[in-house]
Amino acid sequence: MINFQTSPEQYKHWKLNVAGNVATLTMDVQEDVTIAAGYKLKLNSYDLGVDIELADAIQRLRFEQPQVKVVVITSLKPRIFCAGANIYMLGTSSHAFKVNFCKFTNETRCAIEDDSHHSGRRYIAALNGTASGGGYELAIACDEIYLVDDGNSAISLPEVPLLGVLPGTGGLTRVVDKRKVRRDRADVFSTLAEGLKGKRAKEWGLIDDYFPTSKFEESIDARVREIAEVKQTASLRTAAEATAFSDSESSQINSLGYGIKLNPLQRELKPAGVEYKWVNLILNREERYADLTVQGPRPKGDLPITPEGIQKLGDSYWPLQVYRELDDALLHLRVNEPEIGLVCVRTQGNIEDVLAVDETLAANNDHWLVREILLYQARVLRRMDLTAKSFFAIIEPGSCFAGNLLELLLASDRSYMLNDPEEGPTAVSVSTLNAGSFPMSNGLTRLQSRFLADSEKVDKVLAHKGVFDAAEADEAGLITFVPDDLDWEDEIRVAIEERTSLSPDALTGMEASLRFAGPETMDTKIYGRLTAWQNWIFQRPNAVGPEGALTNYGKPTQAHFDFKRT
Amino acid sequence: MINFQTSPEQYKHWKLNVAGNVATLTMDVQEDVTIAAGYKLKLNSYDLGVDIELADAIQRLRFEQPQVKVVVITSLKPRIFCAGANIYMLGTSSHAFKVNFCKFTNETRCAIEDDSHHSGRRYIAALNGTASGGGYELAIACDEIYLVDDGNSAISLPEVPLLGVLPGTGGLTRVVDKRKVRRDRADVFSTLAEGLKGKRAKEWGLIDDYFPTSKFEESIDARVREIAEVKQTASLRTAAEATAFSDSESSQINSLGYGIKLNPLQRELKPAGVEYKWVNLILNREERYADLTVQGPRPKGDLPITPEGIQKLGDSYWPLQVYRELDDALLHLRVNEPEIGLVCVRTQGNIEDVLAVDETLAANNDHWLVREILLYQARVLRRMDLTAKSFFAIIEPGSCFAGNLLELLLASDRSYMLNDPEEGPTAVSVSTLNAGSFPMSNGLTRLQSRFLADSEKVDKVLAHKGVFDAAEADEAGLITFVPDDLDWEDEIRVAIEERTSLSPDALTGMEASLRFAGPETMDTKIYGRLTAWQNWIFQRPNAVGPEGALTNYGKPTQAHFDFKRT
Repeated sequence: MINFQTSPEQYKHWKLNVAGNVATLTMDVQEDVTIAAGYKLKLNSYDLGVDIELADAIQRLRFEQPQVKVVVITSLKPRIFCAGANIYMLGTSSHAFKVNFCKFTNETRCAIEDDSHHSGRRYIAALNGTASGGGYELAIACDEIYLVDDGNSAISLPEVPLLGVLPGTGGLTRVVDKRKVRRDRADVFSTLAEGLKGKRAKEWGLIDDYFPTSKFEESIDARVREIAEVKQTASLRTAAEATAFSDSESSQINSLGYGIKLNPLQRELKPAGVEYKWVNLILNREERYADLTVQGPRPKGDLPITPEGIQKLGDSYWPLQVYRELDDALLHLRVNEPEIGLVCVRTQGNIEDVLAVDETLAANNDHWLVREILLYQARVLRRMDLTAKSFFAIIEPGSCFAGNLLELLLASDRSYMLNDPEEGPTAVSVSTLNAGSFPMSNGLTRLQSRFLADSEKVDKVLAHKGVFDAAEADEAGLITFVPDDLDWEDEIRVAIEERTSLSPDALTGMEASLRFAGPETMDTKIYGRLTAWQNWIFQRPNAVGPEGALTNYGKPTQAHFDFKRT
Repeated sequence: MINFQTSPEQYKHWKLNVAGNVATLTMDVQEDVTIAAGYKLKLNSYDLGVDIELADAIQRLRFEQPQVKVVVITSLKPRIFCAGANIYMLGTSSHAFKVNFCKFTNETRCAIEDDSHHSGRRYIAALNGTASGGGYELAIACDEIYLVDDGNSAISLPEVPLLGVLPGTGGLTRVVDKRKVRRDRADVFSTLAEGLKGKRAKEWGLIDDYFPTSKFEESIDARVREIAEVKQTASLRTAAEATAFSDSESSQINSLGYGIKLNPLQRELKPAGVEYKWVNLILNREERYADLTVQGPRPKGDLPITPEGIQKLGDSYWPLQVYRELDDALLHLRVNEPEIGLVCVRTQGNIEDVLAVDETLAANNDHWLVREILLYQARVLRRMDLTAKSFFAIIEPGSCFAGNLLELLLASDRSYMLNDPEEGPTAVSVSTLNAGSFPMSNGLTRLQSRFLADSEKVDKVLAHKGVFDAAEADEAGLITFVPDDLDWEDEIRVAIEERTSLSPDALTGMEASLRFAGPETMDTKIYGRLTAWQNWIFQRPNAVGPEGALTNYGKPTQAHFDFKRT
């Protein structure tokens, strides 16, 4: 079983150092500490285990070290920053594992950009040596890239020329869409195994600057000080960044110490599931579906309504804890339970309590911790959107799909709501958070995505007073099916059986197409377009067949291609 | 060899009828007239041969019947409109053929929408029977969809539940992005083999209306008359539509007869290429690349400068003829020459002559024929963007990459421009047409896509007086490499060798990612996202393996899935 929980004391491959408002994340991959057998992580190459630590570090910085303004990512190895995803690991992995590995590493890169964009931390890639493949893709997820000019170090995306696959962690998309490199230059760069050194890399816009070895450290330090010391400077790109650390926030942080601690999740791994405090995952492996039940907050009296109270509760505050558990459950489902094709999502609790929590969050969203909680909830919900499983939301008496938990329903592929007053009332509800706190990867809210045909319906739903009963929810367009009690058990059972009988590949492609209507963003391009092409290539004999380039990399044998273009 | 040239006299599967300003395209597929052996085209199912006729008919309408305002697409078969792409054809086709088949059918559907959007013809899908799979995808490419209510006829996308693949002709994207069907309903519809009948299909927004059998024809006729007779009505959706047939245009058409004739292309198929009048394609099959040379117009004196003169010349007018030839050459390369991985694009002629043609086109773009020529050039250039081959533009003395032909350079993945005055000058030039007449699928001009980082460069290039010599073109960012004579031959030779040595699959995925930076549209979603997912699924054992759903469709054996979700 792959475990996504870790903490800095357990890191094998990264060192996280915080000095005042500057954090340094240093990569020093231990080549023998791998997540599977059969390869060594040479030259700061990485596998999923390395990236789980990176994701944890970025997440911790946001909650535990909110005063940090600059994050420097660099390497402890001489002359090499990072050689990217380990090729032998890729060559020996199953298709499904490769796909999930790429998805997780992409989410980690997007989390860096989310932090930069929304919380104003500036990420500096200090390339003290060559950054190739995923190494450069890690750099390009940062705000600024500086390369050492030692006559040797280069940046490169050698996947196409060396391995016959794509740079799979957003590289191609970020080269043309984030750094806006001219497409013909991007074409040259992406087919050049040896990559580019400082001068041309800067000229083409692939890095921001380069410095000779003797001046590298001091140049990075100078740039870091510039950002860290100057609070509001023209070089900070967005309003969000410029205002991210207002004086009042700094005082919030300082008066209460530095951030809150993210303690290990309490979870019990059972033969047929995982039990967390607020989340319960039951795996019906024979039938290939899971029941995921989320408990609402309880009791109301215990929930703080001030930021100070929230900060005191720390990571046991319901909205944070429940989403950490959800996040872990989703990752567990993806990687450790590949045969589970469908997740039935239920909630249990009081709608009023969920709404009260949302009210507290909305009223205090100018507080750093509340903001981070909301941004984290949004990331977890996007992780759900991007999970290659079907989701059915099941609304029964006693459920609490309200506010932030309503997003679980809106993120689901379908919803079934029992409509039988005799069994007890069923209801769902919106909160103000549904109006914009949880954007999807396409930049829209889930309500906007749902009602693309008629944006007035979004306003109507948000303006609705009180809860929606089954008939009202149906009328408002929130629910797919509203069967009455006579049909209920049968309808759910048949729906589950039908869904789990379908081709899992066709469902993955269908869901990826239907979930993201409307506009596209760099993120949706990475997950929808680049990922789909990479998945295709990861199946092609030219990459993974006995004569494929990925298979034969580093062996005395050579790749042989079927040159037919498709 | 698959031949993309046809004409109504040769149609086997469609009848094109024009009465005044109403055209009716009737599908009546001859089940034994197939493009390959091993299947019968039952129930108005189609193969590439059927779609080549459809594409031809739509193209001809625009040029030969410009007075047509409404196009009704319907079926001559009782109780069936169209059963979609033939499943046995798909099951027995190679992966590459399936991919190219889907791409072409997608381009045909997009051509319908291009006609509707830019030329104001309104397409009515009159579903006088069941429309399943590609049958419904053809309907959803039309502006309006009407279904007969005979107790039996339905619309459906049964690919996921029956075949384990996706609806591959834009269906999923158009359901949520064009018709903006709610995603949960789209999910239900796309997994329901039997589809939906009139009432629910209308309620969910999948069709516009349904009529009982007894009133079907008269209801369609009434709607057609309504559109055909009312020139400017609120039910026409866009300004382009409302103004598409202004009185002055009608008089243009009527005073000169109805449209121009598209005569068969003159081309000579040779063992190593195809020779057209203006386009020459030489296939270096051993080396896996092609030389594609386009002749500029000549001599200047023969080129008309008035719409009347253009209309008299008809399809032998250079801008129309050369793009028809280019279009045919691209399709030939795609389908008949799969091992050709790279196309070296050259032009020969006088820059001034090309610019003079562009000036005439720009000055008369309110004339129906000039508009149709420009829109057609734009479609051919998009076909080039979407061709899974690498393109290198080679600029040598005597070339004429100017205006509309400059787009061939901008559409190429790279460009090489000889920089040696002793060999003779090389130059490229813009015309006003480069400012917006040839939008890419992403809605941007190729100059805008090229200079995403700095839109001022677009203005600068467009404002440049006179031609760009090699140094100026390099400085302006128009060219990738500007070698001098000493390196020229070597540089080109090495570039060709390197490119053709790379994995063709990785190149296809890379080019699809790098060519479309910037915004996404429904079209780029169809070609970039949906297509990539479908390509992936078309490789998966769950679809095409011995136990796959596509393989086992219609056989006594059953599909068995590996249920791992990736």
